[in-house]
Amino acid sequence: MYNVSVGNPATEFIGLDLGGTFLKAARVAPDGVVGRRLRQPVESDSVDGLLSQLAGAVRKLEEDGPAPAVGLGIPGIVEPVTGIARGVPNLPSLEGLPLAAELAARCGRPAFAANDANAGALAEAWLGAGQDVRNMLYVSLGTGVGGGLVLDGRLFLGHAGYAGEIGHIQVEPDGVRCGCGSWGCVETIAGAPGWVRRAEKAVAGRPSILAGQRLEPAVIVEAAHAGDAAALEVLDGAARALGAGIAATLNILNVERVVVGGGVSAAGAILLDRVVAETRQRTFPAVFAGCSFRPSALGADAGVIGAARGAMLAGG
Amino acid sequence: MYNVSVGNPATEFIGLDLGGTFLKAARVAPDGVVGRRLRQPVESDSVDGLLSQLAGAVRKLEEDGPAPAVGLGIPGIVEPVTGIARGVPNLPSLEGLPLAAELAARCGRPAFAANDANAGALAEAWLGAGQDVRNMLYVSLGTGVGGGLVLDGRLFLGHAGYAGEIGHIQVEPDGVRCGCGSWGCVETIAGAPGWVRRAEKAVAGRPSILAGQRLEPAVIVEAAHAGDAAALEVLDGAARALGAGIAATLNILNVERVVVGGGVSAAGAILLDRVVAETRQRTFPAVFAGCSFRPSALGADAGVIGAARGAMLAGG
Repeated sequence: MYNVSVGNPATEFIGLDLGGTFLKAARVAPDGVVGRRLRQPVESDSVDGLLSQLAGAVRKLEEDGPAPAVGLGIPGIVEPVTGIARGVPNLPSLEGLPLAAELAARCGRPAFAANDANAGALAEAWLGAGQDVRNMLYVSLGTGVGGGLVLDGRLFLGHAGYAGEIGHIQVEPDGVRCGCGSWGCVETIAGAPGWVRRAEKAVAGRPSILAGQRLEPAVIVEAAHAGDAAALEVLDGAARALGAGIAATLNILNVERVVVGGGVSAAGAILLDRVVAETRQRTFPAVFAGCSFRPSALGADAGVIGAARGAMLAGG
Repeated sequence: MYNVSVGNPATEFIGLDLGGTFLKAARVAPDGVVGRRLRQPVESDSVDGLLSQLAGAVRKLEEDGPAPAVGLGIPGIVEPVTGIARGVPNLPSLEGLPLAAELAARCGRPAFAANDANAGALAEAWLGAGQDVRNMLYVSLGTGVGGGLVLDGRLFLGHAGYAGEIGHIQVEPDGVRCGCGSWGCVETIAGAPGWVRRAEKAVAGRPSILAGQRLEPAVIVEAAHAGDAAALEVLDGAARALGAGIAATLNILNVERVVVGGGVSAAGAILLDRVVAETRQRTFPAVFAGCSFRPSALGADAGVIGAARGAMLAGG
C-alpha cells in the first residue's frame, strides 16, 4: 500500500477528485506522499456552486502553505487542448465548461483537469501497480466502467480525450441499450446498475440469499462468497463482459499490465480471478502471456494523487 | 494516388514486402518516390531459401546503386526489441528467427523488419491517407484482417509487437473457432475464408447468382452490386464484424482517422459505407464525429513504402 504521511508543505501540489456525490482533496508532495486531506459532500450542482466548493477546498488546504498548481479529476471527459468538460452525466452543469481555465481563475494557480479514470491511470503508473511497466490499462469499476491508458510511459488521451473508454466496447450483440447510444456495452453488464438489473433477474423464481436484500455489487459479492447460485451468475456475467472488453484492448494494444481499481474492485480475487480467466480465453496467447493483472495499489487515493500528478506534469 | 517515378538512386532505400505467395520489392527515395520495382513468386518456404531470395532481390535492386538500409514487412509479428519473427502462419519457417539481424547479415546493410500491416500503417501515415493526422488505425483486409496503429505520430507496437491486431477482437460471442485459439473474432467473419464460408451457407436453398461460381470476396462483391440477396448478406456480415472491431478500437483509442486497405478493400464504397454505418452505431457519438474514414491512398505500394520508411526511421 501507498505510504501516507505528512510531506514537505512548501512544495506540495493539490489534487481534487470530484465525484457525483463526494469531493476528495489532498496535498501531494512531488514524491507522491499524501499530506493533509479533505472529504466533503458535493454541495451544489450549479457551475458556480461547484467551482466555489473546489476553490474553497483549495483555500482550506493552502492553509498549510501555497501550492504551485492544482489538479482536478472529474467523472467525465476533458478535452486535451481546450480543457473543456464533455459528457459528465452526474454533474451535467459542467458540460461545455473550460474547466481548467475556470479553476485556475478561481484559485489564482495553474490548474490541470482530467477524466477521473485517466487520473487514476496516471497515479497507478507513477507510484502504484503500474510503476514498473511502459504500457498499462487502468480499469475503474464503479457505477460506470471507466478506463485510462498509459502507452510508452505517457498518459494517452486520444484525439479529444476519450481514450480508454473500455466500458463502451460492445460485448453482447444482443444486449440491452446503453446510455451512450449503443447497446451491449461492457458497462451495461459490469457497471453497478448492470449488476443490480441482472441480480433482479437471477433471483426471480429460485431460492437465493439475495432475495429481499438491497441489491448492490458488495452484497452480491458477499452472496457469491457464500456460494449463492444467483449471485455467482451475476458475478460470472460481469467478469465475462469485463474479460471481453479487456481482451479487445489487449489484442489492439498489447499492453503488459492491467490494473483494476474503483469501488467495485473491492470484491477482490473472486471477481479478478474470473476476469483474468475470461480475458485469457479471448486474447492472443502471446499477448496474454506477456500481460500481468494487478489490483489497484493506491485504492481510493488514486484519484487525488493522479490529479496532483497531472498538475506536476503540466509544468505547474 | 501516389506519384510513381524514378527518384535519386544515390539515396534510395529498399523496401521488401514478403507475402505468403509473392515478394514485392522497390527502391524508395527519402521523399517517398518509388523507383525500380520487383515482383517475384515466393520460391521456397525454408529459412535459407527465403533469406536467399530476399538478399537476391536486394542485390538486383542495388544494381542502380547501393541502399543505405533495407526494410522488410512480413505477414506475422516482429518483436520490437529482439527483431524475432512470431506467428507467421503462411511462412512458418520464419517462426522464432531474428529476422532483421539475419537480413542485415545477408545484405551487408542495416535492416529493419515489421509486420506487414504495421508497414502499411507507417506508409499511409507518412504519405497516404493518414498524413494529416496524429492518431490513425490502419486496417488491412485480405486473407486475414490485420491492423496497425499510429499514435501521437508514431507507430505503436505494444509490448511485444502485437499491437493493432483488430482481426482478433471478439465480435460474435457465439461465433466459430478462430485459428488464434479464441472464437467469434472479426477475422472469422471478415477474413477471406470467412466470406467464403458464409457465402456457401447463404446460397444454400435459395436462388443466387453466386451458385456454381468460385466463391471469393471479389466475386461476392460483384454479385452484391447486382443486388444478389445472398451476396449482400455476406457483405453485411463482414461489414458488421469490421464495424464492431473498429468501434471497439475507436472507443479505446479515440483516433481521428481510420484507413482501410488490403486486397479486399478494392470492394470500395459498397463495403466501406457499410463498415462506417456499423461503426457509427457502436461508437461514442463524439468519438465517431471526430473520426474520418478513408480508403488506402497507396494501395498495393503501401507495403514496400512502409518497409522502406521503417528502415529510414530506424536510422539506417
